[in-house]
Amino acid sequence: MNGKSLDGKTIILRLELDTKLANFSRAASAIEQAGGDVVAIDVIQTGRERTVRDLTVKVGAASMTDKIAKALAELPGIRLVNVSDRTFLLHLGGKIAIAPKTPIQNRDDLSRVYTPEVARVCTAIHEDPSKAFTLTVKRNMVAVVSDGSAVLGLGNIGPYAAMPVMEGKAMLFKQFAEVDAFPICLDTQDTDSIIASVKAIAPAFGGINLEDIAAPRCFEIEQRLREELDIPVFHDDQHGTAVVLYAGLINALKLVGKSIEEVRIVVCGIGAAGTACTKMLLAGGARNILGVDREGILSADHTYAHPMWQWYAEHTNPDRLHGGLSEALEQADVFIGVSAGGILSRDHIRSMADQPIVFAMANPEPEIRPEQAEELVAVFATGRSDYPNQINNVLCFPGIFRGALDCRASEINEPMKLAAAEAIASVIEPEELGPHYIIPSVFNQRVVEEVRRRVIQAAIQSGVARKEPRE
Amino acid sequence: MNGKSLDGKTIILRLELDTKLANFSRAASAIEQAGGDVVAIDVIQTGRERTVRDLTVKVGAASMTDKIAKALAELPGIRLVNVSDRTFLLHLGGKIAIAPKTPIQNRDDLSRVYTPEVARVCTAIHEDPSKAFTLTVKRNMVAVVSDGSAVLGLGNIGPYAAMPVMEGKAMLFKQFAEVDAFPICLDTQDTDSIIASVKAIAPAFGGINLEDIAAPRCFEIEQRLREELDIPVFHDDQHGTAVVLYAGLINALKLVGKSIEEVRIVVCGIGAAGTACTKMLLAGGARNILGVDREGILSADHTYAHPMWQWYAEHTNPDRLHGGLSEALEQADVFIGVSAGGILSRDHIRSMADQPIVFAMANPEPEIRPEQAEELVAVFATGRSDYPNQINNVLCFPGIFRGALDCRASEINEPMKLAAAEAIASVIEPEELGPHYIIPSVFNQRVVEEVRRRVIQAAIQSGVARKEPRE
Repeated sequence: MNGKSLDGKTIILRLELDTKLANFSRAASAIEQAGGDVVAIDVIQTGRERTVRDLTVKVGAASMTDKIAKALAELPGIRLVNVSDRTFLLHLGGKIAIAPKTPIQNRDDLSRVYTPEVARVCTAIHEDPSKAFTLTVKRNMVAVVSDGSAVLGLGNIGPYAAMPVMEGKAMLFKQFAEVDAFPICLDTQDTDSIIASVKAIAPAFGGINLEDIAAPRCFEIEQRLREELDIPVFHDDQHGTAVVLYAGLINALKLVGKSIEEVRIVVCGIGAAGTACTKMLLAGGARNILGVDREGILSADHTYAHPMWQWYAEHTNPDRLHGGLSEALEQADVFIGVSAGGILSRDHIRSMADQPIVFAMANPEPEIRPEQAEELVAVFATGRSDYPNQINNVLCFPGIFRGALDCRASEINEPMKLAAAEAIASVIEPEELGPHYIIPSVFNQRVVEEVRRRVIQAAIQSGVARKEPRE
Repeated sequence: MNGKSLDGKTIILRLELDTKLANFSRAASAIEQAGGDVVAIDVIQTGRERTVRDLTVKVGAASMTDKIAKALAELPGIRLVNVSDRTFLLHLGGKIAIAPKTPIQNRDDLSRVYTPEVARVCTAIHEDPSKAFTLTVKRNMVAVVSDGSAVLGLGNIGPYAAMPVMEGKAMLFKQFAEVDAFPICLDTQDTDSIIASVKAIAPAFGGINLEDIAAPRCFEIEQRLREELDIPVFHDDQHGTAVVLYAGLINALKLVGKSIEEVRIVVCGIGAAGTACTKMLLAGGARNILGVDREGILSADHTYAHPMWQWYAEHTNPDRLHGGLSEALEQADVFIGVSAGGILSRDHIRSMADQPIVFAMANPEPEIRPEQAEELVAVFATGRSDYPNQINNVLCFPGIFRGALDCRASEINEPMKLAAAEAIASVIEPEELGPHYIIPSVFNQRVVEEVRRRVIQAAIQSGVARKEPRE
């Protein structure tokens, strides 16, 4: 070790050394000369002819890894088997496992969980299928379903490459809300095939979380599955975002002393998320919403080929305003961006009403950088974790499914989503509330608890709960 | 407690008591008078108006439960909420859970297993899809797929009622071989839909275990999935049974000093299992097999409407014998029954060659009871756990999938199945071998180890392994 201070990442080099030719200390010094800091050595395999070692190395920048690889390639008898970093190591073999709830240690155990005793349980469910909710994993199991067509910011990378995201989501379900979730990445991007496959596998599941499915296919898939299945179907990219956005807006409006009924809200980017956010805001009482997309402000004066835009125009813009983003923003109280990086200027914000609220949620690059906007706005939120007020779906989906499963809800409806948003907002006490703290942390344990409680209440009141859970 | 000795089962009664009306000691004595033995009381909930208690009660017979329920119904202020027994309690909420491999305790963890860091892992798989085998659960995950059409001895009970069996199977995979397995119970019994659904969900899985799917649909489903997927597809009811049967026969033949090439084998019941067993025996070297079904001995002299029988007739019965079971059994060395209870008589066995081997595997009632046959045979085996020599699939599927996953096999082929059978047989040392011990216990830990080792060898030799695992 040479005492270099490196803030960069840690990589692990697996080296295979020919015992006759290789000189390990030459390898170590080659790495150090190339800029790496060897912090640990693990012997993986030893033999008479070859040994395998893992070297944990701190590197300042990704480019340094290539430099190190090149330096090692020049040494005789040394082969660089692979380079891993901590993130990749965490993913080896996947991120979730199946855990039997009881061990099978003897014939007695075996006969109870499997033949012949299991037959009595099967028969009980056969006689009354609703018993599947108590006697199988259906009670607590959610499918995280994607076709890999719109994954994170990566686009259409397919079902194999989408798996790490869905596995990550399954981890979050378990960690935050004790919901069991299993990743289902579908090797089809055909709407009918997706619907048929999800319906086919539904018996094992108490809920379906749709994820990273491209628009417009995601709308039909969600709608038809909601109609055809008797368990909740929830497209998180739409409704999770909408719930957390609305939670943030509830608290932002408290700060500026305005009510949702009176404010004018501009929603920029009328895709899946923008439409879902708008529906949520309408359900929450908003009366004056303007939608802006490539063609400008959507208005019922026009007809649109895109059915979502047509719906949008008919349900927003009561004054039938025309124009572009600039016109929409004049004297607007709230800007909600689910569009593209950098499209909002300081002048735009200056044209808004007093105490403007800006939610710039485009990812990874927001509609305007917080540094540029902060002095002009009353409240600022983004989708990023490295700024305050992150609008993060993780605040919603664990608790909303926890509540839905616990009351055996047949669907997740508008009242449940509104209740979830109000629950998230309510976790921040009035005296804690401030411009930099309108949304609780995803690690705040009260979030899931409170979302669950209010979602169950709303499900019972709206008649979709099939069970009243004890507390 | 009244000191009664009861060998029967344990049930748990959940009682809700109205605190004003109910008298708990009257309830307890009513249970005892009805024949139950209260062995434990757990208070589940207390309140001013009502309390809930769980009473663990030993009962001599199932009918006693009804008697107890009736006695309790007559008491004021007492409501019997439900009755559970240990098997049902074990099934509450299902038998498996999802376990994250690492906790998510802070933002650093979150950023690695989910956004933004996970994107690098997704990209790596997108660039090289084979990386799904190292960076996702595909490395170790098997789907246990059923349409619920032929479950245990219960028949076509559908996907919901089939779940407890598939969950049990998932437990066995994990317990015996550290294979992660997830139950997929399909809400369709249409061959094309089943195939389409399994293909659609395949990306998350490293193998497909088909289970309890009715014949003849199971053949086409397995065949087409094997052709269209690049991961092992294994119909356990067919091949698991065949492998373990063949393992037993290897050892039984050692005991009687005969070779597989020279013996005459009668297979009774030419359905899915009978055909699979026959194929296995042919692959193992058997030359003289007679298949018997409702129409008698299958022979190439006839043509059969059923394609499986047609295939069977063309590949067995080299001497083109005719007749029924009695004719087939004359001077036969081995009887293999996968047919129906009670169809084999003592006279049948008497007509067989010296030192007859009888595998009476019909379930739950074997072709002949061991008590009736034992004195006439050299070796006797059944499918039941309460007699010696149980032909139990649990000996095969955990190890064969463990091996297939570890060498990333593209399929489970004949050489791998033969290797698995030989491995199972080899676990019993020559000096241990005896008429009552031709098959190891499912709890013998050497079974999985040995099956895995030989299956990997066979996969590598037959060219279907995509990886050579280190030991």
